[in-house]
Amino acid sequence: MSFRFSLHGTDDGARRGQFETPHGVVQTPAFMPVGTQGAVKAALHRDVAEAGADIILGNTYHLFLRPGDELIARRGGLHRFIGWPHPVLTDSGGYQVFSLAARCVIREDGADFQSHLDGARHVLTPERAVDIQARLGSDIAMVLDECLAYPTTREDAAASMERSVRWARRCRERLAVLRSAAPPEVTVSNAGQAQFGIVQGGAFQDLRNESADATVDIGFEGYAIGGLSVGEPTGEMYAITGDTAARLPANQPRYLMGAGTPQDLVECVARGIDMFDCVMPTRNARNGQLFTSEGRINIKNARYAEDDRPLDPACACYTCRSHSRAYLRHLYLSGEMTAGALNTLHNLTFYLDTMRQIRDAIAFRTFETFRQGFLRSASRLSLDS
Amino acid sequence: MSFRFSLHGTDDGARRGQFETPHGVVQTPAFMPVGTQGAVKAALHRDVAEAGADIILGNTYHLFLRPGDELIARRGGLHRFIGWPHPVLTDSGGYQVFSLAARCVIREDGADFQSHLDGARHVLTPERAVDIQARLGSDIAMVLDECLAYPTTREDAAASMERSVRWARRCRERLAVLRSAAPPEVTVSNAGQAQFGIVQGGAFQDLRNESADATVDIGFEGYAIGGLSVGEPTGEMYAITGDTAARLPANQPRYLMGAGTPQDLVECVARGIDMFDCVMPTRNARNGQLFTSEGRINIKNARYAEDDRPLDPACACYTCRSHSRAYLRHLYLSGEMTAGALNTLHNLTFYLDTMRQIRDAIAFRTFETFRQGFLRSASRLSLDS
Repeated sequence: MSFRFSLHGTDDGARRGQFETPHGVVQTPAFMPVGTQGAVKAALHRDVAEAGADIILGNTYHLFLRPGDELIARRGGLHRFIGWPHPVLTDSGGYQVFSLAARCVIREDGADFQSHLDGARHVLTPERAVDIQARLGSDIAMVLDECLAYPTTREDAAASMERSVRWARRCRERLAVLRSAAPPEVTVSNAGQAQFGIVQGGAFQDLRNESADATVDIGFEGYAIGGLSVGEPTGEMYAITGDTAARLPANQPRYLMGAGTPQDLVECVARGIDMFDCVMPTRNARNGQLFTSEGRINIKNARYAEDDRPLDPACACYTCRSHSRAYLRHLYLSGEMTAGALNTLHNLTFYLDTMRQIRDAIAFRTFETFRQGFLRSASRLSLDS
Repeated sequence: MSFRFSLHGTDDGARRGQFETPHGVVQTPAFMPVGTQGAVKAALHRDVAEAGADIILGNTYHLFLRPGDELIARRGGLHRFIGWPHPVLTDSGGYQVFSLAARCVIREDGADFQSHLDGARHVLTPERAVDIQARLGSDIAMVLDECLAYPTTREDAAASMERSVRWARRCRERLAVLRSAAPPEVTVSNAGQAQFGIVQGGAFQDLRNESADATVDIGFEGYAIGGLSVGEPTGEMYAITGDTAARLPANQPRYLMGAGTPQDLVECVARGIDMFDCVMPTRNARNGQLFTSEGRINIKNARYAEDDRPLDPACACYTCRSHSRAYLRHLYLSGEMTAGALNTLHNLTFYLDTMRQIRDAIAFRTFETFRQGFLRSASRLSLDS
């Protein structure tokens, strides 16, 4: 196995570590920029790396539909196809099938859906999710799980969680087949690919516990907490994250899927999370919503029309070194593509810088001080509200 | 005066030189990427500079309407506002007023028009074009001229050319006022700003000669040839360019406005042109039309779906170093913003590399050999036709 997690140290619940993959080492806690279609939106790979990303996330649903996992396998796998030589994690495709595809029908076997691109019908089974990710050759693949909307009944949450466990077992079994004797139709692009299980159970901690125990019982290289950041109150999300993380093995990485705001990262690191992904820094950037150490900025606001200051005086990114708020506002209002590029570069740097500060604070065992300072600071507040 | 042109040497009609501006030196023959609204579309300034641009062009019409020349003057001028510390040339705004604005009415005094953004009425007089560019603080300002469509009658071309000469004189007189005693309402952002006259006259060489003589008689730091690349046959464009350039002072720079294809650059350098601007490399890039040393590529073409080669094996740009044609096609078809960014980076590099090769060939007095090789090569042909 090429995947290896090492825990360097802890500071209360927060954990400082790293994991090794066939494409390099990732320092944890880590934030993974989202590269949906094999590209982080509005950011060139070199800028993503320069902003401090060790690893990016690719969306299996999108890549399966276009350009197709078989084409990517023929190109030598996702890393070679997209020209990103560093680690990549892929999701299972399930979340987009349930949220983006048309006419999705979930059966025990898997999910039937129609492509949002051309209406073609497809079936995503646990085995197929494994095969597709094997062809993509990501460093970390995720099991296919069912992600319910919030709120849901206990009964629905239980049934869905139990199905997710059954699907997780099928995913692990399929990976074992691919590792020992892959059939000719599945090109395994990355023999060292790891596979993470996903804990579900909605907002019901006893179901979460049951899911965690059953998933750990199957045995994966790491564990994710799914089905959060779907509309539940923040306090509830933190509580479930903390209680669930505590139930997962200490010597394996824990990944909170789809979170979140900068303070979510800090709060969930405090609760034992090692990995995050979220579209927030990149999507908000394209909408002119910028994170700074002094608070959030909506660059469209007229107050920035003649503001010669950088977005964030504390930031060393290219955008902040080179441009004023006045210019960034002008680019945004003028519809220039460089608005999205410069804003994305900054927001990614803010997120990845926050992770670096988190890692340093844990290493120096000053994380609680950092956390309190971070949450007191204006960075979670809007300057424009 | 901060503007100084030096002719280093010639090779038949081709000229190798440089000009100095308050923001740095420009090697000639030079190509100026178009930064319409204070940004080269889809390219960050650092990438524009890295691609080899000494100077960019800004469009006065766009900047006047948004964010406004007075706001830019308050920010310290265009260079400081946009964060580009290198030379900038601005056009007069006339071309966009005639082609882009609504309900344009040209009178002897100037042009009445409605903003394409909000319908507001404005008047652009020669004096106002000078004032606006003084506030922008570009290193080279252009006189307001009238640019006719092709074809036109001799009578119309003559009347328009004569008006352009009268407007050029008014522009020069206004600049003299600003240089000696600018009124309080005109902030002069760049005291070393040069001003170029523009030769008009349509496709009638005798009118071109008359215009050239009258414009040189007024006296400017450099001279442009306007009103070409508007639909006339290429051979006619080359002939007028050559004959007109020959009539301009040898010790001042000559700028062919709005041209052109890579072979236009080579052919017009051969005819004595020192400066070019064109949206072709950037606009074509965003449409997936790419220039390579082996021919033009339409990246949408299915033949590139599994093509692992770089766009241009002879190119050292980031795009060609990092990505395959297959990936660039995927990005384009997926509507990713990075498609525009990577394609623009490449096309700009191709243009600016061509200019560097032109300059080297002139310096070594091998320009005719370079030219014949360049025109023989596939670079002007489409690989996808």
